[in-house]
Amino acid sequence: MVQLGSPQLKRSLVLDSNDLIGKQVKVAGWIKTRRDHGKLIFFDLRDRSGLVQLVINPKASENSYKLAQEIRPEFVVEAVGVVKNRPENTINRDLETGNVEIEINSITILSKAESLPFDMGAEELNLELPTLLDYRALTLRHRKIAQIFKVQEAIVEGFRIASKKIGCTEIVVPTIVASATEGGAGLFEMKYYDHKAFLAQSPQLYKQMLVTVFERVWTIAHAYRAEPSVTTRHLSETTQMDCEIGFVDFNDLLDLLEEVAVTMLRHVEEACGGILKDFKMESIAYGKIPRLTVREAQEIIYKEYGRDFRREKDLAPQDEVEICEWARKKHKSDFVTITHFPTTAKPFYTMPDPKNPEYSLSYDLLFRGIEILSGSQRIHDYKELVSSLKKRGLNPKDFEMYLQAFAYGMPPEGGFSFGMERITMKTLGLKNVREASLFPRDMERIDERFSKK
Amino acid sequence: MVQLGSPQLKRSLVLDSNDLIGKQVKVAGWIKTRRDHGKLIFFDLRDRSGLVQLVINPKASENSYKLAQEIRPEFVVEAVGVVKNRPENTINRDLETGNVEIEINSITILSKAESLPFDMGAEELNLELPTLLDYRALTLRHRKIAQIFKVQEAIVEGFRIASKKIGCTEIVVPTIVASATEGGAGLFEMKYYDHKAFLAQSPQLYKQMLVTVFERVWTIAHAYRAEPSVTTRHLSETTQMDCEIGFVDFNDLLDLLEEVAVTMLRHVEEACGGILKDFKMESIAYGKIPRLTVREAQEIIYKEYGRDFRREKDLAPQDEVEICEWARKKHKSDFVTITHFPTTAKPFYTMPDPKNPEYSLSYDLLFRGIEILSGSQRIHDYKELVSSLKKRGLNPKDFEMYLQAFAYGMPPEGGFSFGMERITMKTLGLKNVREASLFPRDMERIDERFSKK
Repeated sequence: MVQLGSPQLKRSLVLDSNDLIGKQVKVAGWIKTRRDHGKLIFFDLRDRSGLVQLVINPKASENSYKLAQEIRPEFVVEAVGVVKNRPENTINRDLETGNVEIEINSITILSKAESLPFDMGAEELNLELPTLLDYRALTLRHRKIAQIFKVQEAIVEGFRIASKKIGCTEIVVPTIVASATEGGAGLFEMKYYDHKAFLAQSPQLYKQMLVTVFERVWTIAHAYRAEPSVTTRHLSETTQMDCEIGFVDFNDLLDLLEEVAVTMLRHVEEACGGILKDFKMESIAYGKIPRLTVREAQEIIYKEYGRDFRREKDLAPQDEVEICEWARKKHKSDFVTITHFPTTAKPFYTMPDPKNPEYSLSYDLLFRGIEILSGSQRIHDYKELVSSLKKRGLNPKDFEMYLQAFAYGMPPEGGFSFGMERITMKTLGLKNVREASLFPRDMERIDERFSKK
Repeated sequence: MVQLGSPQLKRSLVLDSNDLIGKQVKVAGWIKTRRDHGKLIFFDLRDRSGLVQLVINPKASENSYKLAQEIRPEFVVEAVGVVKNRPENTINRDLETGNVEIEINSITILSKAESLPFDMGAEELNLELPTLLDYRALTLRHRKIAQIFKVQEAIVEGFRIASKKIGCTEIVVPTIVASATEGGAGLFEMKYYDHKAFLAQSPQLYKQMLVTVFERVWTIAHAYRAEPSVTTRHLSETTQMDCEIGFVDFNDLLDLLEEVAVTMLRHVEEACGGILKDFKMESIAYGKIPRLTVREAQEIIYKEYGRDFRREKDLAPQDEVEICEWARKKHKSDFVTITHFPTTAKPFYTMPDPKNPEYSLSYDLLFRGIEILSGSQRIHDYKELVSSLKKRGLNPKDFEMYLQAFAYGMPPEGGFSFGMERITMKTLGLKNVREASLFPRDMERIDERFSKK
């Protein structure tokens, strides 16, 4: 079963066919489409490098022709043949291997596929979200869907490059925790031997502790929120990309977060320019990023859009959309940094603004209408931190290890956290964050829908 | 509080002092040690780049001298002074900045520290494991402990470099799952809204599904095992570094796993040579890696060490130690690949050896006496896979999404998984895997010991 045919010939990737004209090659992959033209059968074969056209001519190999009768989309095959230039009138300029085709001498079925529940051969896979996710192991194979996760790979890589550039050390922190990180809401509870434990809402407390070890750290961590609502922006399990940095003040932090965001997304545009074009995305606008307090943003929204939410504590989704529109128009920037959220709206470790403690030294980075990052200067004084915990009704006893880091000397510090799925969503103009997660978790499904069971 | 002194002078890292002789500098960090010599006070200051000696001379600054009286180990300070060459007889050749010292004009306390529960100033931190972990937020700051996690960072980076080199795409897969991956034992259960869910024992099923999308994938994922035993080799939450690869046979897989292991560890030696020397580790022996079946390994152990375990299904820890000893002596290799474990001892997705289905196309990679990797060729035929599930008493209904990938065409494939903490442990000669995890999870503690509560 494992044995592959023609062992003397090494498999080549289909993209290499362009350089192998006249040569005998062995290729392997999935059948994307099948077309019968009179006596000839044409297959588009997909492998990790791209697509190539196979031609099955009964004159070249009658056996292959017979076998080809039963080969349907998503069959896995291995084929040996000769790479030929296509006749001028059949050249496909949209395909990287569109000048060539492989005339097959022998073909082997490595794995059969059931009949597909929908057409996978078209340029776009126009499915409703539930179907897209019900058949996730199949739909991910579609080029347009797979590309989303090539962009996601570039986002993660871009974040790594940027974090290393600013001198951060990578850390790996646990996700099983003994108490609530940001307060009690939205926690997933689990049994941990004879004890109760929780899934971490963020790597926050650990990355802060590690400032005392490496000064500057980064981590990519899973974060868990029991959000009992179904929005297009929230998932129950997300991936955070975090930095935490010692010996900095508020302005340093704003400089650093903007540097990391820009370095990361420039890398994405460089690595995945072709995909962004396929998704018809405009180039990201990197004008100087405006920095506004919540209050200033609300003023602008009032003046420019006539909606008066100047008494609200936070920005609503519609506010985020409008202020980003304004930034793009006015500052040629796809980003806006919003600062000074009300202290009570932020977690206990957030430093209040010494000039007006009702507001905090916190920030969000908005990108194309949505928050993709949040963070703050942190309280680094032990006593202040304990008092902030108590004010929120939290018990310092539950934060013993965390507080240790502060009891033994913590510098001024702060950090930020990017939401990987949201950045993916906005970089590609997706409508729902679920499309930006390989296997999204929400209250309605873990892979399969609960209602189906 | 956040305001740092001397805003006109930019902070420099202590390691840069070597290039700044005669210049005024601002440094910041933690006090490692304090020595009083007559009228002078000496501090060793630690920042992320290293250590430097500060000299407080009352003649240079009486204020600083007064303040310095209260400064103790782990205080966070910022200091301004002039870099000077040390007198010849006080040069410290063990220190990268041992030729210089900084004569301080002004010093500011950024954060005080409580009295330390043990001495953090010595070269080695000789603490029992429970104390080491009870004070984790403090002990991690000790150079010898922090270095463990610089090596870990290099291991992870080395794995990334190696995975990309063999053409893998990075994927991010979920950790909340609906059913047992490898069978029912050792699962952590959790509440998921109104449902029951589990923490993934591995990213196995997801990485296999993604072979049909990208052919070759890698991921670094947390894995959870409720191990109700306390050994020096097991943790409840670990970090796995995984590859999964399509269109390969058993020998390709052995070649690939050895290539990834060697590329990864060569990177570690290159990036962290100095640290490995500090830990008195010998260079890794990269002789051609012997490949033995379990039975062959047992024969060698019997012949070389006189212990007859030729009827055991698997290798015991002592066997792993001895066969590695043998490989080092006989083949100048710190690695041994063991293959063909009994089929019943391996998870349902493991392909039985067609020549003798009692044994499987599985492998472990041993490194310096311990298993650091395991994997196998997988069953890729849908019907065979369903029958294997049933044979293990598992319900195919619970694996619906996973089976989808096979129903729609899966190539021959296989993969492997490295244990990050175990590699860290063996690269540095640590005695317990808990030392190789920043915040280890086991049945006795989540940060704090349960018995203390």
